[in-house]
Amino acid sequence: MRCLPLPGLIDVHVHLRDPGATYKEDFSTGTAAALAGGVVAVLDMPNNTPPTVNGQRLSEKTQIASEKARCDFGFYLGATEDNVGDGATLSHRVAGLKIYMGQTYGPLKMADLAALMAHFQSWPADKPIAVHIEGLAMAGAIALARLYGKQLHICHVSRKAEIELIKKAKESQGATKLTCEVTPHHLFLTQADAARLGNLAHVKPPLGTEEDRAALWDNLDIVDVIASDHAPHTIAEKESPEPPPGVPGLETTLPLLLTAVVDGRLSWERLIELTSENPARIFGLKRDERTYIEVDPDDRYVLNGSSLKTKCGWTPFEGMTMRGRVVRVYLRGALAYADGQVLVQPGFGRALF
Amino acid sequence: MRCLPLPGLIDVHVHLRDPGATYKEDFSTGTAAALAGGVVAVLDMPNNTPPTVNGQRLSEKTQIASEKARCDFGFYLGATEDNVGDGATLSHRVAGLKIYMGQTYGPLKMADLAALMAHFQSWPADKPIAVHIEGLAMAGAIALARLYGKQLHICHVSRKAEIELIKKAKESQGATKLTCEVTPHHLFLTQADAARLGNLAHVKPPLGTEEDRAALWDNLDIVDVIASDHAPHTIAEKESPEPPPGVPGLETTLPLLLTAVVDGRLSWERLIELTSENPARIFGLKRDERTYIEVDPDDRYVLNGSSLKTKCGWTPFEGMTMRGRVVRVYLRGALAYADGQVLVQPGFGRALF
Repeated sequence: MRCLPLPGLIDVHVHLRDPGATYKEDFSTGTAAALAGGVVAVLDMPNNTPPTVNGQRLSEKTQIASEKARCDFGFYLGATEDNVGDGATLSHRVAGLKIYMGQTYGPLKMADLAALMAHFQSWPADKPIAVHIEGLAMAGAIALARLYGKQLHICHVSRKAEIELIKKAKESQGATKLTCEVTPHHLFLTQADAARLGNLAHVKPPLGTEEDRAALWDNLDIVDVIASDHAPHTIAEKESPEPPPGVPGLETTLPLLLTAVVDGRLSWERLIELTSENPARIFGLKRDERTYIEVDPDDRYVLNGSSLKTKCGWTPFEGMTMRGRVVRVYLRGALAYADGQVLVQPGFGRALF
Repeated sequence: MRCLPLPGLIDVHVHLRDPGATYKEDFSTGTAAALAGGVVAVLDMPNNTPPTVNGQRLSEKTQIASEKARCDFGFYLGATEDNVGDGATLSHRVAGLKIYMGQTYGPLKMADLAALMAHFQSWPADKPIAVHIEGLAMAGAIALARLYGKQLHICHVSRKAEIELIKKAKESQGATKLTCEVTPHHLFLTQADAARLGNLAHVKPPLGTEEDRAALWDNLDIVDVIASDHAPHTIAEKESPEPPPGVPGLETTLPLLLTAVVDGRLSWERLIELTSENPARIFGLKRDERTYIEVDPDDRYVLNGSSLKTKCGWTPFEGMTMRGRVVRVYLRGALAYADGQVLVQPGFGRALF
């Protein structure tokens, strides 16, 4: 068995469902899944019930995570029409502002141009504004960020035209203020898989065509971050007539990417940039040399949802053969995960902000 | 009676319904209405039935207008997902490309980001791309025009946030590549009038609040053009359960603006810029010193839809007291309109492109 050291992954886009839907996931199970996936820090989205949209909600969520998280964690502040300007006092406590500018899941959707402009105007320039946005409106977000001089991070880019738009915008304005992420499910699955997987593959943005998927790989040099958009739901929910959107991903991101490295589709350097270096740079996180992981790139196995640490117990990548396994995870010097076992207790994780 | 000379108006946004819906309006009645309103040239939108989306349709429409129009005329080419790149051969025949990027009336709505990007990329840089767009997507159009270096003309701006967005964008990128228009109905009517007028006031974009209306006046220095968006429908259509959007405007734009001048809300210089100088500059039209109008700014009268030249025979400004009347219109040296009578025949109008 070879054992290669890698920086631990920083997953900038997860939904650990805590508080509000802890029957799907909670900070304990979600961060156990993170460690099993080689992820040492997670940035959790604000579309909880209740949503994380003010200082009190941030305090409550910090309290919960401090007691339950096994890896390090940070939060986004959710933008609403009512909390314009709150970044002045809250931005230092979060990874960034999250704006749901498009059709999505949860209570935070914003469409009003005036409120969006007010958020882009008032949010501090030193923290990213992360946006869920699709299609033409994505160009609108790019325009607002440029006009107000703010850092824009575009979540889960999924379409050929979208990555080409971002490429064009980066060529025009430089890459420093505009970053984007893609998810493993948009890199490894398409509408053809959705036909096979049924409701389980229901995600937002929806899985793309093979042309979309190929365009993401072809433009991977434009992509800054690979993030899971880990969004667990129970099998019963997913099999219901109106399944909620989202798939779990914390434990499958790295095996999928290691497989891509073994297959020659991705270099080790780009893997590290996309999962650790760029997330740290974009969100201003210090990296600790005592925090790293060890992977065995030669191991070969079939993904099996029931063996995962996530509470939801399934994966859209079920049955796919992986090359490469997370063997050990060290978090601030402590052995946090080894040989399939999570070795740190709830509460070991620290707040990043 | 005073008689002041003014440049003839160039109305860059009209729907003369010909071909396809000549029971509402046609080039003969529509251009008679134009002359009665002091308008010497009109730019007609492409959402005809069938839509004006290729060379053959342009030829057919040119033939019709050449036989029927009494004032000068130009057309827009309508963008579809199928005519990307046709600007290379068609742009010299039109005022610009019209893209219906938002919710609107007719068959030309486009939402696909890839097709929109392809149009912005391929359309020649020396002719405007005129867009119907509202809200956040307006920022998207601004971004696409900037990324591809194209002239963008935003039609019928109606909301406070939108005019503030355009102001911000003009400050950022300079005004040369970005222009916008407002309509008299958004300058003079609000949702309060819509409550009074019922279906007759159904327009797209909808009438705004008093705050929106005030913002358009407060930012009139940001506005490049006042255009009527003359969109006649029969009274029966407007009174039906699903009224089509649009109001006539060719004959009321100038009386309303003259009233604003008399009231001290608008200078003569700005009136001329907004209705003649800027339209000519933006759309590359030569002005002819033998083409001008004479107005009596002292006349006072009540607007009455049944006395209008438009075939639809009504106005949303019914009953409003106007200050200022169009007395005479000279078109290329010929007396085309005098004292309520149109003096030129169908076919007198010339194609501008």
